[in-house]
Amino acid sequence: MVPRQDIRLCVDAVVFGYTAEKSISVLLIKRTIEPFIHDWALPGGFVLNGETLEDAVTRELLTEAGVHINYLEQLYTFGRPERDPRGRIISIAYFGLVNPTNFKLAASSDAEDARWFDIKHLPALAFDHGEIVATAVKRLRNKIRYEPIGFELLDKKFPISDLEKLYETVLDRPIDRRNFQKKMNHFGILMGHNEKQKHPSAGRPAKLYSFNEERYFQLKQEGIMFEI
Amino acid sequence: MVPRQDIRLCVDAVVFGYTAEKSISVLLIKRTIEPFIHDWALPGGFVLNGETLEDAVTRELLTEAGVHINYLEQLYTFGRPERDPRGRIISIAYFGLVNPTNFKLAASSDAEDARWFDIKHLPALAFDHGEIVATAVKRLRNKIRYEPIGFELLDKKFPISDLEKLYETVLDRPIDRRNFQKKMNHFGILMGHNEKQKHPSAGRPAKLYSFNEERYFQLKQEGIMFEI
Repeated sequence: MVPRQDIRLCVDAVVFGYTAEKSISVLLIKRTIEPFIHDWALPGGFVLNGETLEDAVTRELLTEAGVHINYLEQLYTFGRPERDPRGRIISIAYFGLVNPTNFKLAASSDAEDARWFDIKHLPALAFDHGEIVATAVKRLRNKIRYEPIGFELLDKKFPISDLEKLYETVLDRPIDRRNFQKKMNHFGILMGHNEKQKHPSAGRPAKLYSFNEERYFQLKQEGIMFEI
Repeated sequence: MVPRQDIRLCVDAVVFGYTAEKSISVLLIKRTIEPFIHDWALPGGFVLNGETLEDAVTRELLTEAGVHINYLEQLYTFGRPERDPRGRIISIAYFGLVNPTNFKLAASSDAEDARWFDIKHLPALAFDHGEIVATAVKRLRNKIRYEPIGFELLDKKFPISDLEKLYETVLDRPIDRRNFQKKMNHFGILMGHNEKQKHPSAGRPAKLYSFNEERYFQLKQEGIMFEI
């Protein structure tokens, strides 16, 4: 009763990078094979018979870009019949936000090159990868409204302006800083320290904060926001 | 360069039903074939080569439960290698919330029976469908915190208590009604009418409201909530 299917399955990774230079980048690789040979694309490839989807995406990131990132979450499954010129190939996309300085890229035999690209200046992408990146950007912007972020991205101790900058960069718009600090206090995920910045880039040294880890991960589970 | 894959693809539908009796139900069908013959399961089946994932889930709902529901959204893709005893079969799950009184169930040749089950009293489900339902319940509860709901579920004009009841039922807990009304006013999605309930179930007839459609669908696009 299992009909003959001529559909294949791949995974693709949208790895966003955040640095304090106020930009979000995405990790791309340059393809070595047809179709779209020499074009930029998301790291990804076919799922092997026995591996989980998460293992497949971790393996592809390692073999194509030389990075080990195993905490991506599922974004969406792209299944338009004509999305791949080779035939019916469905892509299960994963995404995540990392600090690029923690990862040294190394294009392997499966890719000509691997690089971070500012999401505002992307090259033409293979397949429907432009649509996948756009979906991931939208999800990321939405996600920070119901989940705390910053833990893996900021220094262990940081001035609150670093956290504000992170939100402004992801949202790509200014935020009301006074309101932001009020909300953050309300959530109780920040701990203030009797310590100031050592080398402020401008003005007086600012007070330093760190995340209250327990509370942070509790709220990541429960979700923040609109309490009705 | 396309490796031999022995993976097949199916879709499954988690259709939730809401009625004013303060319960959420889910549409299940009784299987006519192995594995899990005669067990209850989510409507679903194999994707045909040329059809979109959405068409596949619409077709399966029609052939297994006799209902035409084409506005489900993608929930999650379940890919654990051992989730199906027949081999590697990945399921792309969809979900939605409907008013069951709009649909007349009719089990077809592909199912022995089709019925709504209260999500608090589910039978043992085939495959990992229990996990899929649990994921959908969690998503539904989260979703109503960043998207307005109710438009397709309530009468055209309704007392505000009907909307409160909907939120309480989905969340499965009481809400702060005063705060709720304040938030709803703030969003501007409700219009009050100079009209009262005709047949109140108890007490004085309540004021009637309807959704401001334009605003409702605008906020569905933009997302409600935590404005930072």
